[in-house]
Amino acid sequence: MRIDFLTLFPEMFNGILHSSILKKAQEKKAVEFQVINFRDYSSNKHQNVDDYPYGGGAGMVLTPQPIFDAVEDLRTSSSTPPKVVLVCPQGERFNQKKAEQLAKEEHLLFVCGHYEGYDERIREHLVTDEISIGDFVLTGGELASMVIADSVVRLLPGVLGNEDSPVLDSYSSGLLEHPHYTRPADFRGYKVPDVLLSGNHKKIAEWREEESLKRTYQRRPDLLENYLLNEKQKELLKKWRNEN
Amino acid sequence: MRIDFLTLFPEMFNGILHSSILKKAQEKKAVEFQVINFRDYSSNKHQNVDDYPYGGGAGMVLTPQPIFDAVEDLRTSSSTPPKVVLVCPQGERFNQKKAEQLAKEEHLLFVCGHYEGYDERIREHLVTDEISIGDFVLTGGELASMVIADSVVRLLPGVLGNEDSPVLDSYSSGLLEHPHYTRPADFRGYKVPDVLLSGNHKKIAEWREEESLKRTYQRRPDLLENYLLNEKQKELLKKWRNEN
Repeated sequence: MRIDFLTLFPEMFNGILHSSILKKAQEKKAVEFQVINFRDYSSNKHQNVDDYPYGGGAGMVLTPQPIFDAVEDLRTSSSTPPKVVLVCPQGERFNQKKAEQLAKEEHLLFVCGHYEGYDERIREHLVTDEISIGDFVLTGGELASMVIADSVVRLLPGVLGNEDSPVLDSYSSGLLEHPHYTRPADFRGYKVPDVLLSGNHKKIAEWREEESLKRTYQRRPDLLENYLLNEKQKELLKKWRNEN
Repeated sequence: MRIDFLTLFPEMFNGILHSSILKKAQEKKAVEFQVINFRDYSSNKHQNVDDYPYGGGAGMVLTPQPIFDAVEDLRTSSSTPPKVVLVCPQGERFNQKKAEQLAKEEHLLFVCGHYEGYDERIREHLVTDEISIGDFVLTGGELASMVIADSVVRLLPGVLGNEDSPVLDSYSSGLLEHPHYTRPADFRGYKVPDVLLSGNHKKIAEWREEESLKRTYQRRPDLLENYLLNEKQKELLKKWRNEN
């Protein structure tokens, strides 16, 4: 996979792309990153990339020319048309399913605005996907693009070794994760549940399943709506609902 | 405000904390960042910070000792108890309202796990806030913590100058933003709507209000549920609903 980031702040990417899984993924040739300053594509003699909004108002708006030219240049090297992703509050909500879809692409191209708005023609005639990572305001699209890249790249074949086993994968099973405990068995008087020290694997598995269901019921009952419950789980939920 | 990040990958923070708004906010003394490797707090002779899970299973689990000791050391310097934030898929969903709440705090402390799970006692007895930025899996808490920090810091008094006017603030009005356009009026045959070139400020304001409502209706109808519509907006919505 190839991932290009178009940004006015290329230095923001240094730490993230060269650490941890994203670094490993590049070493394993699973992904290739390019960070491009789209100011370099400006045909304006001052290399401007934004201008005042038509109709007045505060703030600047990114002009279409540098971003169109950059995307068109970068996509010539791909055999299939890349996904051109605009990260913005108005986009489709990002989730694990979308990460899985993007992981099947050959080439992703993130357009990262910063402070400014985008000229609507970028949105209408250039971008293929508008994605939002949530209902909050960020200074730019850079961090959000890195979030999406991280969640996509870790799904690529060969990227996660056994040592990086995804214990945090609350979404793969459809339920939230059960609690984890490690040594010491007693930390300042806070103890590990007896069942986990029992060596009884059947009971441990049962405890984990029940805790996972309980946590989902308490914190994210919406996830249960699309989850196929077995008989035991239905009984547990009934019991907890009656207790309330 | 002071923001501390506890992490095993301090190098991930370099680019982000020293660019753009987060850099400016530090220069203006609105915020002070510290990135702490909690491995330095490990009392284990090999400086281990994780161990196998009780009850078996794949993956490693972060032990309580280094994280408890680090948090307790870092919070001694605060006059009020800091918020100790764990970023994890099971937490409360982050949104603009939560950003505004956190912006009122004096000291935030983010605990960033990576690959590993957390020993449940960290969650139960140390952490004050569990926050999720969305239903997707990341390699670690670092990127998510930076997302939260960015959205919080830009709300601090004096951080955003006029030049950084928040045109992307889709959430402040309760509706999504109307489209923006800038020069040229004709880009490759794609034209700016006539009304924006008319100079008629009343019509421009009406167009923008209507486009903002339409976009919200088309893309995020859920936002309209908590929005106080005026008579004109009610009529427009009725018209669009009838057209479908």
